[in-house]
Amino acid sequence: MTLIDTKVAAQQGNYFEDFKIGQVFKHGVPRTITEADATLHLALTGSRFPLHCASPVAQACGFKSVPLDNLLVFHIAFGKTVNDISLNAIANLGYAEVKFEQPCFADDSLFVCSEVIGLKQNSNGKNGVIYVRSTATNQNNKVVVSWIRWVMVEKHDVDLPAPKTLIPDFKTHIPSDDVSIPQQTYFDAWKNHWSDNQIKFDALNIGDAIFHQSGITINDSGHSLATNLYQNNAKVHFDQHQMQHSSHGQRLVYGGHIISICRALSYNGVGNALWVSGINAGSHTNPCFSGDTIYCQSEVIDKKEINQRSDIGLIRIRMLGIKNDTPNALDFIDREESGRLTYHQNIVLDLDYWALMLK
Amino acid sequence: MTLIDTKVAAQQGNYFEDFKIGQVFKHGVPRTITEADATLHLALTGSRFPLHCASPVAQACGFKSVPLDNLLVFHIAFGKTVNDISLNAIANLGYAEVKFEQPCFADDSLFVCSEVIGLKQNSNGKNGVIYVRSTATNQNNKVVVSWIRWVMVEKHDVDLPAPKTLIPDFKTHIPSDDVSIPQQTYFDAWKNHWSDNQIKFDALNIGDAIFHQSGITINDSGHSLATNLYQNNAKVHFDQHQMQHSSHGQRLVYGGHIISICRALSYNGVGNALWVSGINAGSHTNPCFSGDTIYCQSEVIDKKEINQRSDIGLIRIRMLGIKNDTPNALDFIDREESGRLTYHQNIVLDLDYWALMLK
Amino acid sequence: MTLIDTKVAAQQGNYFEDFKIGQVFKHGVPRTITEADATLHLALTGSRFPLHCASPVAQACGFKSVPLDNLLVFHIAFGKTVNDISLNAIANLGYAEVKFEQPCFADDSLFVCSEVIGLKQNSNGKNGVIYVRSTATNQNNKVVVSWIRWVMVEKHDVDLPAPKTLIPDFKTHIPSDDVSIPQQTYFDAWKNHWSDNQIKFDALNIGDAIFHQSGITINDSGHSLATNLYQNNAKVHFDQHQMQHSSHGQRLVYGGHIISICRALSYNGVGNALWVSGINAGSHTNPCFSGDTIYCQSEVIDKKEINQRSDIGLIRIRMLGIKNDTPNALDFIDREESGRLTYHQNIVLDLDYWALMLK
Repeated sequence: MTLIDTKVAAQQGNYFEDFKIGQVFKHGVPRTITEADATLHLALTGSRFPLHCASPVAQACGFKSVPLDNLLVFHIAFGKTVNDISLNAIANLGYAEVKFEQPCFADDSLFVCSEVIGLKQNSNGKNGVIYVRSTATNQNNKVVVSWIRWVMVEKHDVDLPAPKTLIPDFKTHIPSDDVSIPQQTYFDAWKNHWSDNQIKFDALNIGDAIFHQSGITINDSGHSLATNLYQNNAKVHFDQHQMQHSSHGQRLVYGGHIISICRALSYNGVGNALWVSGINAGSHTNPCFSGDTIYCQSEVIDKKEINQRSDIGLIRIRMLGIKNDTPNALDFIDREESGRLTYHQNIVLDLDYWALMLK
Repeated sequence: MTLIDTKVAAQQGNYFEDFKIGQVFKHGVPRTITEADATLHLALTGSRFPLHCASPVAQACGFKSVPLDNLLVFHIAFGKTVNDISLNAIANLGYAEVKFEQPCFADDSLFVCSEVIGLKQNSNGKNGVIYVRSTATNQNNKVVVSWIRWVMVEKHDVDLPAPKTLIPDFKTHIPSDDVSIPQQTYFDAWKNHWSDNQIKFDALNIGDAIFHQSGITINDSGHSLATNLYQNNAKVHFDQHQMQHSSHGQRLVYGGHIISICRALSYNGVGNALWVSGINAGSHTNPCFSGDTIYCQSEVIDKKEINQRSDIGLIRIRMLGIKNDTPNALDFIDREESGRLTYHQNIVLDLDYWALMLK
Repeated sequence: MTLIDTKVAAQQGNYFEDFKIGQVFKHGVPRTITEADATLHLALTGSRFPLHCASPVAQACGFKSVPLDNLLVFHIAFGKTVNDISLNAIANLGYAEVKFEQPCFADDSLFVCSEVIGLKQNSNGKNGVIYVRSTATNQNNKVVVSWIRWVMVEKHDVDLPAPKTLIPDFKTHIPSDDVSIPQQTYFDAWKNHWSDNQIKFDALNIGDAIFHQSGITINDSGHSLATNLYQNNAKVHFDQHQMQHSSHGQRLVYGGHIISICRALSYNGVGNALWVSGINAGSHTNPCFSGDTIYCQSEVIDKKEINQRSDIGLIRIRMLGIKNDTPNALDFIDREESGRLTYHQNIVLDLDYWALMLK
């Protein structure tokens, strides 16, 4: 018996030198998202945003049926990119321009590809940052969601020359005019008790911050189920035997699970921010582990009217995830002289997103 | 940035003084129950009652498709009431008159409201008991399930005067004539092996008790998934960071999860008690935690013929949940001179229900 | 109150002396498998085999919709047999001739029966081995899967005489000509990136071995959910209170969960072995517990052309599950002079199966 070349047979992911500007990856394992994915996402987070919970509510707003939570769509689409892009990632540095172009429904299928749009070898010569733009299209070849992310990846052969540095231009946030509003939806028939009579668009001001009160403790099986559901095969989330020897000493919780938990917690406070339309920026500022309890705070950082619509407006929210503490979290973020943000070790997520909010 | 008034933005639940007789709450987040909810309920409990497992079985009995387990329907409907009724509950004292009016099927939607029907401030002046009647209706505005429960809730402003005491009348049990039988169902074509050739209606006598043998150990992710699935947002079930400072030192398992586990265990013994028709009374007599192993014992406390039906009868079962021990559990319940029951610390559930049982 | 005869009311399973050659068990609780079962199986394993993930992929290959993973079908069918066959099992010794006769789809229902085909009392007089052939048929009365397994079962009354020994003939492996190919399927339109451009039939040789790199750590809730989903009610998987006094000191992970995890891990390496057609032999060579990390290695032990098909071939794979170590696992298996295999304590699974593999 021959142990065959594992580069061919069992894939071990790409290294920094394997990425070239303009290179396109068609990712493996197309995926049909089902009603059961939505239910499991709900059970893994406790989310209560009403559009995703009841067909009479969704249909009263013009959706043909219950639309999938865009965060679920994002996690599944993102999961497809891991095998080619980030299996050897040292760190997921951030994402930007996450644009949800149109609603997904149960039984829609996703096909995902990524293009390399930037490269920068780090000065240590041992690793570098790659920038990719990823796109998920559905069975009708329509774009469902696209996004940019950048990842620090190991270099395998450190003797290879550094590639030309190219850092792509991208926007600090999606301009409000570019935010996609689901077509033929209207929210005039909304009944206030559907979302627990919570605060509405006009009553929120830029600068307002809301602490969402409840916390959710993460358990091993829960985060493993979530990450498997998204078919995200990054080893750091699953392999305790290997991770016990890492600096963390244990498995890392997939950051997308933290995003969904924070969003679910934020229902109590911004429950009328019904629909995530786009993510402007996001970073996982500290690692999370099983046993951590996650809390969430939202800050209103922008608001925009939508044409002449009286039913909804666009709200831009900075959502902070905090672990094992319930402070006014924003005190825990400093800006260095260089402009770089530094985060207290209990801040685990800093996410900036646009949502449709009831007026 | 202003941390805005959390009474408005992030809801913190109602206190004793917020409840008035006759007040009606239309609860938030209508919910479509899907096939996936049923599957997850099965996976969280191991339930094997055949009507809920196979469409050929359900259809052979006159159901249009697999009916949802009424306990699942109850947990989801109950979960809707937590935000308004029991977010500040000190204790869920009991429920009564849980009447399942008609079967639910996948894709039915629930809308839940509650009316305050009783109030009694406790003599300590710090808290009181509220009684509510809750009703879940479906998308066709038909009542699916209604129930009474009473809850001890904190008083926020202890200086407010006590309200007039009103303790509602309710029945110690649902009269057998009031128990709803699913319309156009018949069980003549039942094949005995479908339910493992178990004991039938005529062979059971009032006073018989059955210990169901198997046990199920509760795990953190399991009970969190269940409680999230029901969108029950009571903090005590999810927030380990907070609960470590409570008298329990850890998260409490949602009592509804215990009910479903006990019912699942009881399949081995009363597997022919196919359909839960109503719950007469229920109390969670001691708390459960992750790591506890749950056992179950059933006692037949009543039997009734249904009109002239030869296929099924009504059986009234007292289902006891026992943790970490497998005794003849009924020895562990004492009746004080006052008539009040006291329970050994290992008895966690005392539930009295009506079921349809095969003849 | 009378504690009634538990042999009648709460079943405690059959003992060695209860089995007779030719006896047929029609097992309880017919089961409709849903899309949600498939999703949960995916979330419990992280499986990425593309035929089971996306309807456009399945339909491009001639399936009417996404076919269920045959391992999921097997686990659910197997679970049905536990109550009658192996509730008092000391050990599941092995299975053979697991033949998947035709694809299953969501909403198909399974009815399972078993025939006793062999008996051998052990020389200690205290237990014996029973051999059964089990068959799962669907709602159209067509055989979906059949298999042989043998189990060591306790004898309850050790004074009873030993039955006549009969060890059934069965094949060491399913002849390739007997392997069922799903009708009207074709794989000519396969796009290589669907399965991550992995190695194909012609590039693999008999004797090649592939270590699949990733590991998955098992958690309590995960394996409990899986085993409950399959409605496998063997107590050893669920009851920590009882198992703490066993030689293992804790709950055992159901072996079928290990099979599914190994198969999921093997995607990275034999991802083009799209379809499990039959299991030739399988044994769970050591127990697994919560906290164990599972790795997998595959060895090609046979290859066969299928008629004149240019799209697929049949590959026979020996799949080894290894816990808490990542060696070249095959060094860890010895063959004694008697011919019996002995396994290192970290080898937990030795499974021999046929799969359809892309050419």
